[in-house]
Amino acid sequence: MGVAYFDVASSAPLHPVARQALQASLEEGWADPSRLYREGRRARMLLDAAREAAAEAVGCRPDELVFTTSGTRALYDGIAGALAGRRRVGRHLVVSAVEHSAVLHSAAAHERAGGTVTEVGVDRAGAVDAAAYAAALGDDTALACLQSANHEVGTRQPVAEVAAACRAAGVPLLVDAAQSLAWGPVEGDWSLLTASAHKWGGPAGVGFLVVRKGVRFAPQGPVDERESGRSAGFENIPAVVAAAAALRAVRAEAAGEEARLRELTERIRARVPALVPDVEVVGDPARRLPHLVTFSCLYVDGETLLHELDRAGFSVSSGSSCTSSTLTPSHVLKAMGVVSEGNVRVSLPWGTDAAEVERFLQVLPGAVASVRRKLGAPEAGAAEGAGGTAGAVTVDALGERCPQPVIELAKAIGRVRVGGTVTVLSDDEVAAVDIPAWCWTRGQEYVGAEERERGAAYVVRRRA
Amino acid sequence: MGVAYFDVASSAPLHPVARQALQASLEEGWADPSRLYREGRRARMLLDAAREAAAEAVGCRPDELVFTTSGTRALYDGIAGALAGRRRVGRHLVVSAVEHSAVLHSAAAHERAGGTVTEVGVDRAGAVDAAAYAAALGDDTALACLQSANHEVGTRQPVAEVAAACRAAGVPLLVDAAQSLAWGPVEGDWSLLTASAHKWGGPAGVGFLVVRKGVRFAPQGPVDERESGRSAGFENIPAVVAAAAALRAVRAEAAGEEARLRELTERIRARVPALVPDVEVVGDPARRLPHLVTFSCLYVDGETLLHELDRAGFSVSSGSSCTSSTLTPSHVLKAMGVVSEGNVRVSLPWGTDAAEVERFLQVLPGAVASVRRKLGAPEAGAAEGAGGTAGAVTVDALGERCPQPVIELAKAIGRVRVGGTVTVLSDDEVAAVDIPAWCWTRGQEYVGAEERERGAAYVVRRRA
Repeated sequence: MGVAYFDVASSAPLHPVARQALQASLEEGWADPSRLYREGRRARMLLDAAREAAAEAVGCRPDELVFTTSGTRALYDGIAGALAGRRRVGRHLVVSAVEHSAVLHSAAAHERAGGTVTEVGVDRAGAVDAAAYAAALGDDTALACLQSANHEVGTRQPVAEVAAACRAAGVPLLVDAAQSLAWGPVEGDWSLLTASAHKWGGPAGVGFLVVRKGVRFAPQGPVDERESGRSAGFENIPAVVAAAAALRAVRAEAAGEEARLRELTERIRARVPALVPDVEVVGDPARRLPHLVTFSCLYVDGETLLHELDRAGFSVSSGSSCTSSTLTPSHVLKAMGVVSEGNVRVSLPWGTDAAEVERFLQVLPGAVASVRRKLGAPEAGAAEGAGGTAGAVTVDALGERCPQPVIELAKAIGRVRVGGTVTVLSDDEVAAVDIPAWCWTRGQEYVGAEERERGAAYVVRRRA
Repeated sequence: MGVAYFDVASSAPLHPVARQALQASLEEGWADPSRLYREGRRARMLLDAAREAAAEAVGCRPDELVFTTSGTRALYDGIAGALAGRRRVGRHLVVSAVEHSAVLHSAAAHERAGGTVTEVGVDRAGAVDAAAYAAALGDDTALACLQSANHEVGTRQPVAEVAAACRAAGVPLLVDAAQSLAWGPVEGDWSLLTASAHKWGGPAGVGFLVVRKGVRFAPQGPVDERESGRSAGFENIPAVVAAAAALRAVRAEAAGEEARLRELTERIRARVPALVPDVEVVGDPARRLPHLVTFSCLYVDGETLLHELDRAGFSVSSGSSCTSSTLTPSHVLKAMGVVSEGNVRVSLPWGTDAAEVERFLQVLPGAVASVRRKLGAPEAGAAEGAGGTAGAVTVDALGERCPQPVIELAKAIGRVRVGGTVTVLSDDEVAAVDIPAWCWTRGQEYVGAEERERGAAYVVRRRA
């Protein structure tokens, strides 16, 4: 059995060009680039060359770009520095609801420190509306953050429009370009940009932080003289050389790979709903990353499905609650209002063979069916098909975890007549996301939820 | 001409064992260790094994140690987390005056945020006095920091005694073990420890932060779920594997190399003062790192001397002001009260050949003499030898930079009789360090300084 790694949005294997660059610069780039002796001068030359290459790929001046130790660190330091640089303007931060957790953690820290935060919502495809984003900007807005494309569903954000609105309002826009930078520079008149090298086949340990000239920026916390005072600690030159080389390499292949991978993800988008009953493909079908596709399978436990797929040789990830250590569903899927249960994200590495995708499409239906059987899920489409007569049914799913409350709902809906209601009692917080999302997917009416002493009662009316 | 890198205290070349470990784990350790699929599980296994090995070398439990992205980051986050964890006790921080700049930058940030800081001074050898350190601890002391050994002069600090005093006072002690961890675990009952892998032949991009069980610790700023919430950002597994492997490798060689390198640095300590006139070897002659020796050459410009040595094939560093971007002399030499001009730090890598050290001892006298000639420095010992008759001489060195004010002083001292004074007018702030230190070295009396509209007037009385 072959194995296929389909989770490049988490981390990409090292690009061969990155490996070569790393090997070479391990020999030449280990010394302190601030030293004046030959080993230091060599290290400095490597660092400068890497910065030139990275800046060219980003589309900025070399002196606007510093290397950080991760994409997360670039976001932490970029957001903190930009907020502090404009503290006199105000302490208001605008972010989208579907940003990477590093942005949301920074926003939470900013609120703990007395700042204010506005989260701009997204549509069911995961995109912000540029006008709604612009409306969130105020006189006291110090900074706005928007990802170039979403890491869980692949939807591209209207960065250029939002950047124009921010420019008009005099607010700097920070773009988290982690997921898209491999495919091309970020369009529009942004002010700050961050990225993470291990997403494009560079090594771990390298982020980019770009601050355009003229943007007020005040690095926070203790600082040193490294990287223009914007990224503390000894420079990791072999890694930044490899990161820049990998970015250049993937860019050289980008046009061809983009078309090829888009066709492969299009196959998945089109065929999964036909192959697997009760599936919702999520994310924007057109304005999206070429290599990423996400879908949610009703009545499926994400962790068990991932295990099934892993056993069949496929490594994918999931935004389902049961696959995270916090037992909460992905904030992205929640903000989009889509089903979070049985969620599967497929993100194809450069060079993925079409045959691997075909094999995935062969394996997936059986894997989903097997999980559904174990959980006692309803037969495909069987639920509403049954001729129910009851006017109101109450289902007690207290103590049961995702996806059981939705499975109970799906089984009960067939027992009520059209116009009748099913009330699901559940203390699983995922139900608050998944029951409304199930209704939307199935064309049933979500009436609402009422808090109870233990959990809540979710009421659904049968429409068809 | 051979070339010799004698600045391992800045950064060590990659250890062959680290290179091997890095190569292997680049293939196996690039995936996200929090993922459940095979690539994630492999990455997790490598990360766990690296942590076990690192903890064993440190002498702590694996769950007490997290990997950070640099030694600097370990210090920033370790100090901030420990201070916040004991905020209820108070906001007083104790550090030595000769800590790494990352500690002093953290202390400065703590002061800016409203905390208080006590800097414990050192003797002329660069060591803190354990009793003086203990006296600085108060009821409101949240944290104390002490390096295991100094990075510029090699002096080992009385860590075990200070740790005992801290324990008695109920104050956690953070030990910066960056310079010594290669040679062995840190003795004593410390509470937190930091280290930096590129100092022992590991790759850049890896620090250790150890927090003993029971120590109150509250990570600051935005956090994520990586590394127990104590080190944010995607784990750099190939690098941490290589770092742990390199530490294990240098420890295996430590006993033999320690004796061998100590003998080589002993040669430098003993022979430089005999080979080069007007030199002061600094740092403790006995309680010191085996591979590091530092001396200051009077009447020499550090940057020019480093260039001469670089041309002769030797890479060394300097704490002289003219070799730093800030044009201030090393805070370590300043705190010790020793001459900072013409400062040379030699730190020998593992495996340094005795022949290289011999060649350095051959080259050094000519290099120093050449710099002195260019600067018009007094002949060796000539200064006081001349029979002066004047009662008081004033030398105008305004506008001149280190080492010129001291050169002018040395030339003038021969023109006054014993008991007479030389007044040096200087606006170079280094003079405030180097003129008193010159007096101490030469056995002359430093009377004091008086501020002037421009710079200051430094008064020296001739004793002999």
